[in-house]
Amino acid sequence: MSDENLQICLASRPKGAPSVDDFDIRRGPKPSPGEGELLLRTRYLSLDPYMRGRMSDAPSYAEPVPVGGVMVGGTVSVVEESRHPDFQAGDHVLAMSGWQTYAVSNGEGLRKLELPEDRLSLALGALGMPGFTAWWGLNRIGEPKEGETLVVAAATGPVGSMVGQLAKRAGLRTVGVAGGPEKCAYAVDELGFDVCVDHRSEGFAAALGEACPDGVDVYFENVGGKVLEAVMPLLNAHARVPLCGLVAHYNATSLPEGPDRTPLLLGLLLRKKIRMQGFIIADHFDQFGAFAKDVAAAVLSGEVKVREDVVEGLESAPEAFIGMLSGKNFGKLVVAVS
Amino acid sequence: MSDENLQICLASRPKGAPSVDDFDIRRGPKPSPGEGELLLRTRYLSLDPYMRGRMSDAPSYAEPVPVGGVMVGGTVSVVEESRHPDFQAGDHVLAMSGWQTYAVSNGEGLRKLELPEDRLSLALGALGMPGFTAWWGLNRIGEPKEGETLVVAAATGPVGSMVGQLAKRAGLRTVGVAGGPEKCAYAVDELGFDVCVDHRSEGFAAALGEACPDGVDVYFENVGGKVLEAVMPLLNAHARVPLCGLVAHYNATSLPEGPDRTPLLLGLLLRKKIRMQGFIIADHFDQFGAFAKDVAAAVLSGEVKVREDVVEGLESAPEAFIGMLSGKNFGKLVVAVS
Repeated sequence: MSDENLQICLASRPKGAPSVDDFDIRRGPKPSPGEGELLLRTRYLSLDPYMRGRMSDAPSYAEPVPVGGVMVGGTVSVVEESRHPDFQAGDHVLAMSGWQTYAVSNGEGLRKLELPEDRLSLALGALGMPGFTAWWGLNRIGEPKEGETLVVAAATGPVGSMVGQLAKRAGLRTVGVAGGPEKCAYAVDELGFDVCVDHRSEGFAAALGEACPDGVDVYFENVGGKVLEAVMPLLNAHARVPLCGLVAHYNATSLPEGPDRTPLLLGLLLRKKIRMQGFIIADHFDQFGAFAKDVAAAVLSGEVKVREDVVEGLESAPEAFIGMLSGKNFGKLVVAVS
Repeated sequence: MSDENLQICLASRPKGAPSVDDFDIRRGPKPSPGEGELLLRTRYLSLDPYMRGRMSDAPSYAEPVPVGGVMVGGTVSVVEESRHPDFQAGDHVLAMSGWQTYAVSNGEGLRKLELPEDRLSLALGALGMPGFTAWWGLNRIGEPKEGETLVVAAATGPVGSMVGQLAKRAGLRTVGVAGGPEKCAYAVDELGFDVCVDHRSEGFAAALGEACPDGVDVYFENVGGKVLEAVMPLLNAHARVPLCGLVAHYNATSLPEGPDRTPLLLGLLLRKKIRMQGFIIADHFDQFGAFAKDVAAAVLSGEVKVREDVVEGLESAPEAFIGMLSGKNFGKLVVAVS
């Protein structure tokens, strides 16, 4: 293990899609923990769409990364050195070390991981923030009922794949949306979606309509854009729309062309008595235990399927992240750091 | 009492704002009830914004009025003749007789009224559908909490005035929006709103912002349009937006000019974790008893203030209705029919 701390910093705020020039690679010495602190070495870094928001200084629910600052991100880290009573060298923890090899922590916000060595990265996906997002949004806002129909986009991603599998388990007809035939086949064959519709295909909206002969009762919204547009006319009375992301809009530099369709959405919510609710999973970590209890065994046994897209080395993170925003990843994107 | 049945029918589907030519006055004989039926004479007809929707054949939650058909509407009616075991001549009932002097009913859906003779019209307003809309939407979706701030438009109307007074009772800061200084003064002096902002004044959005120094936690949405636009930047994290009407859009013949602002609304719901939920009060009449128990005594005692705008004679209904859609009424609009 090198003594160098590799850091990926925000070089500039992207306009539209980020490019590799918006990131800076910086190399420095490994930091030293003070009294009551511990030194963490990053094993895996999670790459997630929300990070695009942190690169921007538009008002949001969280502070932006300052230009020149290390990119934020969840990590699975190992304690290399501990001067903190609650942790020992060798412990694995879930941390927010960001895009860097080493970080010093005072222990706050760390969660010790009990996962087997070869499943540690699950703490960033199916058994971490994305899986919990799926579980909380589906159950607390989606209120799924047996026999209903659910639609979720990015169906092979860490949130969508969990939403689909949990909804299936609850007895719903599950309709995925994904980009390309390979992902669609995987969604049906491996994840158990009843149908998966390719949003890149012509006639996407019509195909989605055919896939939902009884309309849509739960639309788990993580993308926005044309998927939402195609789902809107399919929504049934009293449909629920948990809203956890809008990936299709994250790189937008201006609003779409007119007319202003806002009244269509409002009118739909009114006429169909629809509940649409945004949520940020960080608000709900008090319920993480209930999530883990409900889901962890099924994930570890393989009953709930997990697919990871692992890239090697922190230097690969910017390109992998940029690709994710246009759907290039296939499964939960993680960086194996060290 | 004349033996003539005066009916106001839909002559044509309006394009944009309805005109009196879209209505037809028809005179026919008083109908006769068959076995098991009863003859109702309309005392008061309710005029409500939702009726604009029924004049249109765009898809909605309810069937449109057919061209040539009698306009629909809630009424306080008196039983003139009963061949039904559950009703007697002289009973007052809440009915859906529509815009006509007489109607025959089989008794289904009628609710007997126990109100004093001079307060019968309350069953169309504060103690009827609009009051219940306010109560249900505020409590079931708005989830008001002491110390929070609520905004409601059409603050002197039957829904807005009840929302404001119930929210005040629950310990919220209440901010009304109304058209013109007279209505605004009434909202504050009589209805007890903390502030009421005139949406016709210049600098409306800025004034609304000043009226809500701690942001907005509950926006009871009944109008849409520029009020919603002014409220959006004021909404706090975890705000609730019950959505029961969009009067500002009912007469629109096309969508507003671009750009398409839908992503702004979606992004706001996400970042601020807002719950927006449409509802149609007809779905919730199983809870009418709880509403009446909570509110009826306070309305009858005058503790909750009620203002009615009564127009005389069924022939006046079209013009009064058209005026209501642009805010000409001041209080709950009812027609004294007979």
